[in-house]
Amino acid sequence: MNPFLKYINGTLCLAGKPLHPVAARFGTPVYIYSKEVINEKLLELRENFPDGTIFHYAVKANTNPQILKFIRSKKIGADVVSLGELKRVLKCGFKPNSIVFSGVGKSEEEIRFAIKKNILLNIECLSEALRVQKLATSLKKAARVSLRINPDVDADTHPYITTGFRENKFGMAQEELIEVSQKLSQSSCVIVEGLSFHIGSQRLSDRPYVDAFSKLSEVVNALKASHTHFKHINMGGGFGIPYQMSEKPILLSEIARAAKEFTRKWGLELHCEPGRYLLAQSGVLVTLIEYIKKTQAKNFAIVNTGMHHLARPALYGAFHNILPLKQGRGSIIRYEIVGPICESADAIGKGRDLHELNEGEFLAVCDVGAYGFVMASNYNLQPLPKEILV
Amino acid sequence: MNPFLKYINGTLCLAGKPLHPVAARFGTPVYIYSKEVINEKLLELRENFPDGTIFHYAVKANTNPQILKFIRSKKIGADVVSLGELKRVLKCGFKPNSIVFSGVGKSEEEIRFAIKKNILLNIECLSEALRVQKLATSLKKAARVSLRINPDVDADTHPYITTGFRENKFGMAQEELIEVSQKLSQSSCVIVEGLSFHIGSQRLSDRPYVDAFSKLSEVVNALKASHTHFKHINMGGGFGIPYQMSEKPILLSEIARAAKEFTRKWGLELHCEPGRYLLAQSGVLVTLIEYIKKTQAKNFAIVNTGMHHLARPALYGAFHNILPLKQGRGSIIRYEIVGPICESADAIGKGRDLHELNEGEFLAVCDVGAYGFVMASNYNLQPLPKEILV
Repeated sequence: MNPFLKYINGTLCLAGKPLHPVAARFGTPVYIYSKEVINEKLLELRENFPDGTIFHYAVKANTNPQILKFIRSKKIGADVVSLGELKRVLKCGFKPNSIVFSGVGKSEEEIRFAIKKNILLNIECLSEALRVQKLATSLKKAARVSLRINPDVDADTHPYITTGFRENKFGMAQEELIEVSQKLSQSSCVIVEGLSFHIGSQRLSDRPYVDAFSKLSEVVNALKASHTHFKHINMGGGFGIPYQMSEKPILLSEIARAAKEFTRKWGLELHCEPGRYLLAQSGVLVTLIEYIKKTQAKNFAIVNTGMHHLARPALYGAFHNILPLKQGRGSIIRYEIVGPICESADAIGKGRDLHELNEGEFLAVCDVGAYGFVMASNYNLQPLPKEILV
Repeated sequence: MNPFLKYINGTLCLAGKPLHPVAARFGTPVYIYSKEVINEKLLELRENFPDGTIFHYAVKANTNPQILKFIRSKKIGADVVSLGELKRVLKCGFKPNSIVFSGVGKSEEEIRFAIKKNILLNIECLSEALRVQKLATSLKKAARVSLRINPDVDADTHPYITTGFRENKFGMAQEELIEVSQKLSQSSCVIVEGLSFHIGSQRLSDRPYVDAFSKLSEVVNALKASHTHFKHINMGGGFGIPYQMSEKPILLSEIARAAKEFTRKWGLELHCEPGRYLLAQSGVLVTLIEYIKKTQAKNFAIVNTGMHHLARPALYGAFHNILPLKQGRGSIIRYEIVGPICESADAIGKGRDLHELNEGEFLAVCDVGAYGFVMASNYNLQPLPKEILV
């Protein structure tokens, strides 16, 4: 599944580097990330998408400052969704003209800060457009915006991570978007630079992207008819990775082909916002087995991490592969990998068939470079895990 | 539902105190807690349970230091589940002999600290018992313990918050518990002081408690037969509160009657660990409506709080009543109350019929005094909400 994780001489390695010494040195629980994997994934993206594509890394996937600086050094921009993220990427050296500010709930304070810094604002609804217009006028400074359309395609993913369906809170229907563009065109304080959409998260099929591009011609036509001139299309991100054996990698080439055709036809720049695709496979969460507990019903491996450090299994029922750092031997046993939190929700892996485990052993929870540490909390007053970039 | 929340002169009050001035003064999002409600709930517990019942507040429900100090001032002990919680309650003035340390994943460091401070340890499995014995021996200091039985009663609640069913990670089956008590009886370094159990969380029926007490006679008999002397039974907590109109309050009197009968029969002290019951109704989360967004499919009220501040709706599908601070007028509209987080999971209330809402208005998310702030995170690099005790 994750081609960067392999046993070499019986010890689990991430991009060729053994994980055990890092865990032993820094202690557990610890998120260990690999620069090399991030770089490989970035090359994959660049190989597939047309030259000139502008990438903004979706910062919400992983906000670790060292990772942000590394990504910036690769000439990638940033897609942020809060004032906190915006301030962090500025601190990590991202230039204002390489940042997009998305999100449905931007406060006045957030918009004011973004306008002052000349950050592109991704507008999600009429009310927000009016707020941006009002604040730009009062600040006497032009606001750069793009308009987010809700393409109403069913991304056929977990209901929690679909975003581009009309029942979701994100984006605007075509009629509202045209209305917004007309209202904004009367104002000299707001410059519409682009059109954006986002389909959902953890997509493994190229189909909804291809569908979305074919649907978009209508809205582009309507915008042109209403004399709204804009220069880029932002296709969002949402490219998934295979978390399970049964999942197949997404075909980026097909998506890129549709994007290229669309941008050529309309003479637009292509913007793209990968997050999970770049980061997920770059990180593991290494944990220690505190106790093996055999009951009549189940075998539990009780570890020193849980839902407070990695929310995805409890929150979405998400599957993360779990591998021992030392390659297993002996008989195969079915384990429940659970954490210390006082809730039955606190299971990192259910019914995992693994070679017999022992107390004191390390396990790696795989593919947690995205949406791992960023969702961690201090629930049960447990400390946050460490983060190490290798 | 929550008898402490009422409109007085058109403004929402918690235990008679208007919420609007607090929200306006401290800003939103803000958790506002009422001492008076906590006190009322405490009186309810004391009225129902027999004199001499020893209460330990389940700290994981709400770890706010001011609340902890208030509870301590009411002669209540503390039930903690991590070194972090243990250190905090000690700092808030709880005496070591009024503290119980529960939880399935206690590390060596946690156990060592607890033994040194003479804290009662609630033992969850054989491996943990052996670890406690080993550490107590090496520290040359007796460890006080109670043994947690898994009563194997089906608490008929959300699968995530049942704990006393044999498929759960908590407690020991009778045979294992007897084995542990026999192993520990050979050691002078471990003193078995009690037997404990826990059924689950958010219980609204007294039935599983009554069932558990009737099942426990067998294990008490077996312990007596193996010459294990102990002085208390800890019945855990798990008493629920009605979050929805359709839910009825739990009948504490029935549970107390079964507990009284049991403790009299066996000559045991009764320990009880309420968390949610004491705290849930004491708190509201006040939030500001940033945007009203009407789409063809839905009406969204986009607020400045979400799943990062209150995880229960996204995590368990939990229902929390939502009330405007200013009593509503005008037509009834169905709203989706959603937050700023870039996920469709980020809904605080789905399909709520409320009088027409306006941007800039405050809403109270009700019954969030327990398992609210403690699960908050900085996801999307959003700041944590404030907490105010009135």
